[in-house]
Amino acid sequence: MIQAGIIGGTGYVGAELIRLLSNHSKVKISGVSSVQYNGKSISSIYPGFYGLQEIACESQQEVVEKSDLIFIALPSGLSQSIVENAVYKNKICIDMGADFRFKNEALYKKWYGKTFLKHKLHEQSVYGLPELNREHIRKAQVIGNPGCYATSVELALLPLISEGLIEEEGIIADCKSGVTGSGKNLTESSHFVNCNESFTAYKVANHRHTPEIEETLSSVSKKNVKLTFIPHLLPINRGILSTIYATPKKAIDLERVHEKYREFYKNEYFVKVLPLGEVSKINNVRLSNYCHISLHYDEENNKLIIISCLDNMMKGSAGQGIQNMNIVLGFSEKEGLAALPAVF
Amino acid sequence: MIQAGIIGGTGYVGAELIRLLSNHSKVKISGVSSVQYNGKSISSIYPGFYGLQEIACESQQEVVEKSDLIFIALPSGLSQSIVENAVYKNKICIDMGADFRFKNEALYKKWYGKTFLKHKLHEQSVYGLPELNREHIRKAQVIGNPGCYATSVELALLPLISEGLIEEEGIIADCKSGVTGSGKNLTESSHFVNCNESFTAYKVANHRHTPEIEETLSSVSKKNVKLTFIPHLLPINRGILSTIYATPKKAIDLERVHEKYREFYKNEYFVKVLPLGEVSKINNVRLSNYCHISLHYDEENNKLIIISCLDNMMKGSAGQGIQNMNIVLGFSEKEGLAALPAVF
Amino acid sequence: MIQAGIIGGTGYVGAELIRLLSNHSKVKISGVSSVQYNGKSISSIYPGFYGLQEIACESQQEVVEKSDLIFIALPSGLSQSIVENAVYKNKICIDMGADFRFKNEALYKKWYGKTFLKHKLHEQSVYGLPELNREHIRKAQVIGNPGCYATSVELALLPLISEGLIEEEGIIADCKSGVTGSGKNLTESSHFVNCNESFTAYKVANHRHTPEIEETLSSVSKKNVKLTFIPHLLPINRGILSTIYATPKKAIDLERVHEKYREFYKNEYFVKVLPLGEVSKINNVRLSNYCHISLHYDEENNKLIIISCLDNMMKGSAGQGIQNMNIVLGFSEKEGLAALPAVF
Amino acid sequence: MIQAGIIGGTGYVGAELIRLLSNHSKVKISGVSSVQYNGKSISSIYPGFYGLQEIACESQQEVVEKSDLIFIALPSGLSQSIVENAVYKNKICIDMGADFRFKNEALYKKWYGKTFLKHKLHEQSVYGLPELNREHIRKAQVIGNPGCYATSVELALLPLISEGLIEEEGIIADCKSGVTGSGKNLTESSHFVNCNESFTAYKVANHRHTPEIEETLSSVSKKNVKLTFIPHLLPINRGILSTIYATPKKAIDLERVHEKYREFYKNEYFVKVLPLGEVSKINNVRLSNYCHISLHYDEENNKLIIISCLDNMMKGSAGQGIQNMNIVLGFSEKEGLAALPAVF
Repeated sequence: MIQAGIIGGTGYVGAELIRLLSNHSKVKISGVSSVQYNGKSISSIYPGFYGLQEIACESQQEVVEKSDLIFIALPSGLSQSIVENAVYKNKICIDMGADFRFKNEALYKKWYGKTFLKHKLHEQSVYGLPELNREHIRKAQVIGNPGCYATSVELALLPLISEGLIEEEGIIADCKSGVTGSGKNLTESSHFVNCNESFTAYKVANHRHTPEIEETLSSVSKKNVKLTFIPHLLPINRGILSTIYATPKKAIDLERVHEKYREFYKNEYFVKVLPLGEVSKINNVRLSNYCHISLHYDEENNKLIIISCLDNMMKGSAGQGIQNMNIVLGFSEKEGLAALPAVF
Repeated sequence: MIQAGIIGGTGYVGAELIRLLSNHSKVKISGVSSVQYNGKSISSIYPGFYGLQEIACESQQEVVEKSDLIFIALPSGLSQSIVENAVYKNKICIDMGADFRFKNEALYKKWYGKTFLKHKLHEQSVYGLPELNREHIRKAQVIGNPGCYATSVELALLPLISEGLIEEEGIIADCKSGVTGSGKNLTESSHFVNCNESFTAYKVANHRHTPEIEETLSSVSKKNVKLTFIPHLLPINRGILSTIYATPKKAIDLERVHEKYREFYKNEYFVKVLPLGEVSKINNVRLSNYCHISLHYDEENNKLIIISCLDNMMKGSAGQGIQNMNIVLGFSEKEGLAALPAVF
Repeated sequence: MIQAGIIGGTGYVGAELIRLLSNHSKVKISGVSSVQYNGKSISSIYPGFYGLQEIACESQQEVVEKSDLIFIALPSGLSQSIVENAVYKNKICIDMGADFRFKNEALYKKWYGKTFLKHKLHEQSVYGLPELNREHIRKAQVIGNPGCYATSVELALLPLISEGLIEEEGIIADCKSGVTGSGKNLTESSHFVNCNESFTAYKVANHRHTPEIEETLSSVSKKNVKLTFIPHLLPINRGILSTIYATPKKAIDLERVHEKYREFYKNEYFVKVLPLGEVSKINNVRLSNYCHISLHYDEENNKLIIISCLDNMMKGSAGQGIQNMNIVLGFSEKEGLAALPAVF
Repeated sequence: MIQAGIIGGTGYVGAELIRLLSNHSKVKISGVSSVQYNGKSISSIYPGFYGLQEIACESQQEVVEKSDLIFIALPSGLSQSIVENAVYKNKICIDMGADFRFKNEALYKKWYGKTFLKHKLHEQSVYGLPELNREHIRKAQVIGNPGCYATSVELALLPLISEGLIEEEGIIADCKSGVTGSGKNLTESSHFVNCNESFTAYKVANHRHTPEIEETLSSVSKKNVKLTFIPHLLPINRGILSTIYATPKKAIDLERVHEKYREFYKNEYFVKVLPLGEVSKINNVRLSNYCHISLHYDEENNKLIIISCLDNMMKGSAGQGIQNMNIVLGFSEKEGLAALPAVF
């Protein structure tokens, strides 16, 4: 059994990793670290794990020491030194935050206010979107797990961008996420009374996933991909639905575009291109690692509309982390991720 | 006291009209018609009205007869003959459905599959958006109350369209509505388990409010306004939030645009242009007749983002109907509509 | 116009009082105090009030000075000295907290850990349940507005207790409340993700409303009324539903009990005894000041089941405060409270 | 691989069985029947299964023929003849409905209006509560899977009833269930707008699970166990929480009662007796087969309060069906059921 540790195991991403790893047939949780809950059992924080997963939180060093592979689920900026140390000790690192998502330090600095500690680590690290980078992930030692919104927008646009079928500029991504996306911290915006029966946008055209998406898609396109990205907060626990508006360079035949998507994702188990006429819907991917993509065309206005959805804690975070782990360790990609969606 | 009747009083729009009229100081409910519940008390359908509003449903003729003004809250296509008869008897008609929203019969026919029964009625009727047509409403005998999505998009765009500040084509309206918008009927999409904890788009680029919005804005612009409109279903009871993407014809200064909005709506009690930096949010208009508009600019991509929200049963339907009634009857526009939003 | 001030105006009870008073025809809000938001507009805290209610927060003294009547919406223990001062200045006080709900200091001390500062004030104060104490309220200078759960349980049991129809001991009150009941503060239990799609009990058999209910009902019964009271947290914003189990002293005829309830509440506008066969339901009282009561009998086990529901922010708190204000000022009790429930 | 068929596979219980069986390592779904959807793929009804589980619905006969074991998920009254036929063909039957839950035909007839077709089948059938009947289940050919509410109440009371610690009469079970409990059919009470932000009781003291609970507990007690059972509808998809009030025969020590529960369930993987001080909560068992039980004592009133919760689709239905299948087939009881709860 591979020993996998979790640094920062008590936030939502950490807890979801624990939930998934607890049923993984080839990996054992070696340890979980938490500064805040050091010494406490994970079930004292998540009573649903009572009697099932009672591992006690330790220090980061202890966890790194015991592990073959570590997941790092910390606020951005805190992963770099941990990764440096772990790599030195020959551990594989999957960083769930933003520290290893960027190749462009200037972008990282502009949006996150931090610099790269050790450039070589960033050069070697791989952006962990398996549908784009599988072969690189296979050989990576440091993987930057993509952002939740970023995953949903990138998977929706990759087939179009890679073939240059749409204008690279002027793309609009109107995205909606459940509240787990903003984490375990108590904030005004996650207070039940403030989000229940309500809905709003936030960080309008100013969300940190914008540069991540643009960098990833530009690297595929070889052109400068630009998008207006607006996230909204849905009064639900889990799920992201992204409605994306793109302008085809010339008039399209939706059926042909659909075929291209099918072809592009034909070997991708976790991306389902829905039949034409169907619409992606959050409850159809809930609690699963699948991403649904539906395609629509407003011929009158020559707008291609791509609607993608996924579970932000799964394909948008911990599930994708496990998928990356399976790849880097040479397991079947589905291992521990095969559960059907909980459609109700 | 003016006698107001409601034709089709047992659907959600009818019930909301009853709720509002029950506390209107200058109008009395003369009667309520229902084919399905003829003879039954409205409180047997909505037990919350028990002991408060016990009026029994009658036939349409009886209601028209007793009323000075009638609200018609029927599925589209059923209002025309009722209006014809009521006008003949000199009653004022506020049609809550789509039959009198269009001047262009071809559009109406294309999207609703019906023809105009009596063209003169349609010529004389007024589209009941007070912020656009107040003076015409004042003298109208037949008012076509706007659609809920249409109200939210039109109010958001009127200041820009009327000054020609944005490209008239290529506008995108990504709209999200609560479930009351789809009415009282039992459908798969309004089954609790299907929409709770979920979210999806529907009628993608194919919703009947599209031509209504385009016709209204084009009449203001004198140019052909075209938009891609995609509605989504929120797991909440009430509220619409529309995120609208428009391309300024030339680079703009957001503060100046904001001032124009303030100026445009300075005498409009029910439209609140939020301070720059604020974002419209559904719970801030819930159970009220207000429409909130917030303005944002993605300079990088030259996209102006207008976010408007309102309560679909109030400013989006029954509340606006009451506002129109107040105007046509010469009352203060706020009469019966002054309640502050229920912010929680 | 009467000048009414609100001490502690920025919590949920304060905000609901502001919402209601803003549309009261005979009372004007003289001032609102807040330690935390001193100098800030109430609309900066509740943006739904933007452009409608922009009063700025002041000090407690300033508010008391300007007011004929004050509502005090502070955590328990903080009202006594304010009331003492205000009474000295001849103001009427309606305390929304627990400080003036008890006659028995020992009980107050046991459950709230505080003592009575000035016993005479407590002797003169009146427990503000209009259906029980209307005549005393009319002449009161200090009114202790009842707790939300307490109101729902007391109204449900008063007719039975006053006639001695049920065993005074062994009553069970299984109560369920929406999240506004726990206020505006950010807590683990009010984090969206923790209560959405969940449900639990809290303070099991140990909630502070227990002694309030027992003292009130015992004072009516002249016997020692004892109950097991268990509150639960519903994933909704507003509303309390109490399912109460009582043992009739002898076999009963449900229709006769129902008649007694009807008789008991025949002059009470805000208490609706539902027809036999109906069941109280939270959406039927939402956003209104009504209390619905339904009666059921499990003959097999000789248990009378009384189900009452109300909106915890209205009849359970601010609405009842306004009702008490109307009584003490000699207005119609319905003034400002006549809105029909928002049944959806 | 064992071949398992599902008769009535398109309702919620059927769909949940499909979700669980799709990841069971020792069982294959042989077929699914549906009268309504004959010939259609299960993914056309549940689009979340698209690309994952595409089995087409067949006739009941076809499914029985291909299967070693069948689950029957039909409305009550329709299982008996199917079971008779399947038993004749030597298949194992797990009936998810009520037809095989009763030994007492009179009770079944009183509450379900049907008679036993073949008495011998009912005599041989086993009530499928593993914690009570594991040894009988092991050898059964026909298993009556318990009701959801019944499971939650029985597991909560078994330790007390089996030792005679509480009064057998006068037990109160105040139960709350999510909306999946009322199934896939479109009804007024499952319309989103009617249950969202609301809460109510239904079938007050008149629910069909009452006799099931009483029969089961009486068979353990050897005395006549009687309870008042009131179900309520929670605005959530999944989960049941039961608050149960029992009267100890003599004063108790809660710690000793707690120890008895621990002892009683020490070998039961799916029943977790929480530490004293903790309270059962629905999100701690969501999407899992666990039942949480917490214990509380109101010493003042000598009431023992037992709060149990489970996921009504899992331990309350399909999960328990799989558990029974594992037992009867000699597999580990956890097979296919080991997932940790989705605590958010």
